[in-house]
Amino acid sequence: MTCAVLSIGTELTRGELVNSNAAWLSAGLTDLGFEVVEHDVVDDDQDRIIAALERLAKFADVIVCTGGLGPTTDDLTTVAVAAALGVGLVRDEASLDHIRRRFERLGRPMSDSNAKQADFPEGSTVLANPIGTAAGFEAKVHNARAYFMPGVPHEMKRMFDEQVVPRIRDIAPNDSHQIRFRTFGAPESVVGEKLAGVEEAFPGVTIGYRAHFPEIEVKVLARMPGPASRRPGDALPVDPQAVVRELAERAAAEVAARLGDIVYGDGDDTFAGVVGRALRTRGWTLAIAESCTGGLVGHMITKEPGASDYLLLDAVTYANSAKQSVLGVDEDVLRGHGAVSPECAARMAEGARRVSGSDVALAITGIAGPGGASDNKPVGLVFFAIATKDGTEVKERRFNGERLWIQTLASYVGLQMVKDATTRPS
Amino acid sequence: MTCAVLSIGTELTRGELVNSNAAWLSAGLTDLGFEVVEHDVVDDDQDRIIAALERLAKFADVIVCTGGLGPTTDDLTTVAVAAALGVGLVRDEASLDHIRRRFERLGRPMSDSNAKQADFPEGSTVLANPIGTAAGFEAKVHNARAYFMPGVPHEMKRMFDEQVVPRIRDIAPNDSHQIRFRTFGAPESVVGEKLAGVEEAFPGVTIGYRAHFPEIEVKVLARMPGPASRRPGDALPVDPQAVVRELAERAAAEVAARLGDIVYGDGDDTFAGVVGRALRTRGWTLAIAESCTGGLVGHMITKEPGASDYLLLDAVTYANSAKQSVLGVDEDVLRGHGAVSPECAARMAEGARRVSGSDVALAITGIAGPGGASDNKPVGLVFFAIATKDGTEVKERRFNGERLWIQTLASYVGLQMVKDATTRPS
Repeated sequence: MTCAVLSIGTELTRGELVNSNAAWLSAGLTDLGFEVVEHDVVDDDQDRIIAALERLAKFADVIVCTGGLGPTTDDLTTVAVAAALGVGLVRDEASLDHIRRRFERLGRPMSDSNAKQADFPEGSTVLANPIGTAAGFEAKVHNARAYFMPGVPHEMKRMFDEQVVPRIRDIAPNDSHQIRFRTFGAPESVVGEKLAGVEEAFPGVTIGYRAHFPEIEVKVLARMPGPASRRPGDALPVDPQAVVRELAERAAAEVAARLGDIVYGDGDDTFAGVVGRALRTRGWTLAIAESCTGGLVGHMITKEPGASDYLLLDAVTYANSAKQSVLGVDEDVLRGHGAVSPECAARMAEGARRVSGSDVALAITGIAGPGGASDNKPVGLVFFAIATKDGTEVKERRFNGERLWIQTLASYVGLQMVKDATTRPS
Repeated sequence: MTCAVLSIGTELTRGELVNSNAAWLSAGLTDLGFEVVEHDVVDDDQDRIIAALERLAKFADVIVCTGGLGPTTDDLTTVAVAAALGVGLVRDEASLDHIRRRFERLGRPMSDSNAKQADFPEGSTVLANPIGTAAGFEAKVHNARAYFMPGVPHEMKRMFDEQVVPRIRDIAPNDSHQIRFRTFGAPESVVGEKLAGVEEAFPGVTIGYRAHFPEIEVKVLARMPGPASRRPGDALPVDPQAVVRELAERAAAEVAARLGDIVYGDGDDTFAGVVGRALRTRGWTLAIAESCTGGLVGHMITKEPGASDYLLLDAVTYANSAKQSVLGVDEDVLRGHGAVSPECAARMAEGARRVSGSDVALAITGIAGPGGASDNKPVGLVFFAIATKDGTEVKERRFNGERLWIQTLASYVGLQMVKDATTRPS
């Protein structure tokens, strides 16, 4: 079963907006087992909308379309579809009521242009929009089932999940199963090399990669082998979902074994969330002392709900004077070794642990650039320290790249050290 | 002059990757005065690539294409273009040398599949890739000038800027001028209402909006009026660029006047960068005491190069004990008013200023949720304080939304208070 995604809007063709809707919809359709072979994006031009619809309907079983359902004069999707189908527009009283009530609730007058949003091509089925004024609709374009939805992402996503998916499930191949891993600690090329040959070893399995710097997400997608790969006499499987799930699980076990400890969690985990879970499991509280990462470690940790269960303090001691006054770093250390030194990292971690009373403390000090480098201390040089009741451990790393890249990598490396510390026997 | 953007790759049609390349290229082409009317995205399928090219070449003067130039078997762009043009492939020795040298430098053997990246359709012009192995090429498809570039964003962007733009500049209408403003402090609907009627008052001007939560970017785009809007007898302007620049500047002045102080800078500014500039101008140092924002304010400030010129300390005192030990907040304040109170915010700001010796200090304490609320202290309640030598000022705000949304809004409001403080006479 083949799908196409059509996005309508001059803000897209002019590059004012990135088309994340198309990616979101495609991922959802792919998960249902459909093969999405084309995304088309046209500007707010009636003729081009019609031409795109006609063309996509020639090969796609399902067309999913977003945008152009608003109240303004450049919202042309509904009239374009009606023209393509050679039908008129019909006003839907239920939709008109819904729009009117929304405006009443907001205490604002409803304009005539909003009434236009209650018009639909004759013969189409209205898809209600409980959280906006732009209802969608379903129509048959040649042999394709076509679904028209608003472009506002949260309205579109809800309409797709609640109203489009149930309407296409009967033709969804539903013959695939996906397992995702999140990794940190190796670049995409290395992850790819580690997994070379897995696809060949598990026919029907595709390995996909998605980089969210500095993480790589690995997707193990298992699909039913097509008829061509079945041997004569093979019976069709009774439960295709069970077959692909078992295939995905076997391949995923191989993938996990090959990747080893760069896998930190499954597709829905976040790195800081996993670190937080490790702290909670160990029953530890955390303090942080940051310099070059400037608060990013604290931000990552506190983005997670419930971080107050373990985080006591993040002291971003950017100036040397703050390292002294807040963390009690000796002036001798700063003068003798400099703020970017293993000695200073160690004293920062110990100071953060002492002042907060935490079980574990992480310190990061380095040069994020572009300024601040010296002959023997280049941009990208970063020192880390972990202090616990058992002592202090220091690590040196050298990163390449721009300021935010260095800050991000250093934050990940520091959090990895916290996680490692929680699993150490004491 | 009409453009189309063609993106090739199954990772796009499956939704594993958001097509940000198409938006970036479209914005660049629009800035040159081209009208981009369509983006097409097809999977790694030779027939679909050929069909897309043939179709776009029927109406586009320029086709800009990315992806499918890699070394693997699913990279099919070059062979598809050759097939579409009915020509063979020719090996380019300079490109082969370049690839070979890159592998030598990396100390890795060059595989045969990489040699394939030195093959180009007969009659095409090679576009060198100084930072990767995938060179691009220019070819004529029917009457369209078509440019094929790698999909890796930083390689593609450099190739576009350095090699494609000079090759299309002779047909670029170059009849537009854009001025951008960055705003914070009003939602998109309010910004839109403030600017109602500007387009009508300045024919040829389009106002565009782009939300980067919680900011709204406003774009004032002036284009040469088309022949239809010129009156008979009107002479063609001698210098179209001067005409559109002057039009854009007049409209932008009106836009700036209507938006007032929600405009914080031009299109290349960042909010934290503008705050940093204000601190530098005043010659002030800054300390921050964060609670619910958890390091985000510090992260925003230190993302900017040179932040060490003004930032001394960001104390993320997440636990009450840290508020006491690091900032010297009295236990009485915490017991009597709680950590989320104007009193605590004030003591945090004063403590951060005292311990760091800064000129100004900002404190933020609140409830980011989803947990932590009580009857009289709901999720989203945030107190702010600014301490200077002239005293301490406190502000209360109530935000709606999810955790990260509340943290982000609170960080912006806090930074705005710092900026406001720098302009106050003392």
